Amino acid sequence: MHMLKLYYAPATCALATHLALESTGAPYEALRLDFQGGQQRSPEYLRINPKGRVPALVTQRGILTETPALLQFVAQSFPQAGLAPLDDPFLLARMNAFNSYLCSSVHVAHAHRVRGSRWADDAQAIAAMKQKVAQNMADCFTLIEEHMLQGPWVLGERFSSSDFYLFTISRWLEGDGVDVARFPRVADHLQRMNAEPVVRKVLPLHQG
Amino acid sequence: MHMLKLYYAPATCALATHLALESTGAPYEALRLDFQGGQQRSPEYLRINPKGRVPALVTQRGILTETPALLQFVAQSFPQAGLAPLDDPFLLARMNAFNSYLCSSVHVAHAHRVRGSRWADDAQAIAAMKQKVAQNMADCFTLIEEHMLQGPWVLGERFSSSDFYLFTISRWLEGDGVDVARFPRVADHLQRMNAEPVVRKVLPLHQG
Repeated sequence: MHMLKLYYAPATCALATHLALESTGAPYEALRLDFQGGQQRSPEYLRINPKGRVPALVTQRGILTETPALLQFVAQSFPQAGLAPLDDPFLLARMNAFNSYLCSSVHVAHAHRVRGSRWADDAQAIAAMKQKVAQNMADCFTLIEEHMLQGPWVLGERFSSSDFYLFTISRWLEGDGVDVARFPRVADHLQRMNAEPVVRKVLPLHQG
Repeated sequence: MHMLKLYYAPATCALATHLALESTGAPYEALRLDFQGGQQRSPEYLRINPKGRVPALVTQRGILTETPALLQFVAQSFPQAGLAPLDDPFLLARMNAFNSYLCSSVHVAHAHRVRGSRWADDAQAIAAMKQKVAQNMADCFTLIEEHMLQGPWVLGERFSSSDFYLFTISRWLEGDGVDVARFPRVADHLQRMNAEPVVRKVLPLHQG
């Protein structure tokens, strides 16, 4: 396989795909965008990803985006890494349902803290959205704690890409004003993930 | 396979999974929830889906949720229906990226019109969100029109579950104050989908 190139930026969900790629052991290139400098909106980058977001993965056949799609693609491209239950469509759907919940509900709940201007122009409305973020994130993580995170990993005994993605978003709780200690299973997961060698290696590249 | 049961409600994204299931030709049961009556928040339904949302698919091995996960699961469970490029991980990732964009960006943009209370408690803030929905939906569909919908189907010559999902969300444009005629490729897709026999059969079950 042609070497993959991942576009990422610190403090974004691109961390999940970065961790998945790194854990395959395959060579790849990680290209960091300067979000503060607006590089994601540059004409050069918009030609790569017209959405102006990360992650974006450059493959031999074209560019792919969206974390859940990338996580399954990386798992299928490097099956020996064991990043998804590829032999079991039901469990794979569980993984994808978890990842889809993170991207469409939890990431969205979080985004209302600093990206409220996506959904309203009025400053007071943006402030009102910010106020509800802690509660919404806590509600999401109550569901994750009580119904979704099987333990020790998201899918149970079997590690998967969902663990990289959950780790990525659990790290946002503190900044969103939520004490992760309220969710003992999530807190335990976060702590174990923090100790993983692949996390120790990749995390410094995501410092602001 | 044990007969699948789909929980759905009119005017929701569950239409996409309903169309996919129906098009497999396999037997299944479709159970309609009364959202106006709050049935999605009943203790009985919360035992099925603690998120209180649709779609939810009851399978022999457990309950699955989230449209992108369900669409791939249905495609994998009934491969003869040809609902996903299962033999091509890159194209499958393209399908999943498209579906993920619909659920995490487009559906979310739409939801700010009638579900603003998810993200703010203040009535003025909720009104401010409503005001931006038409613009946000138009921005999303500009991306779909110019960069994502290959034509004639989402993935090009190959029909896939993404076509059911795009159809489901394109139908919301009018209510969101966006004239679909601004997007000729989307409008053409909507018209062709509307003529599909599976759509003619399922749509009446989704009337309010």
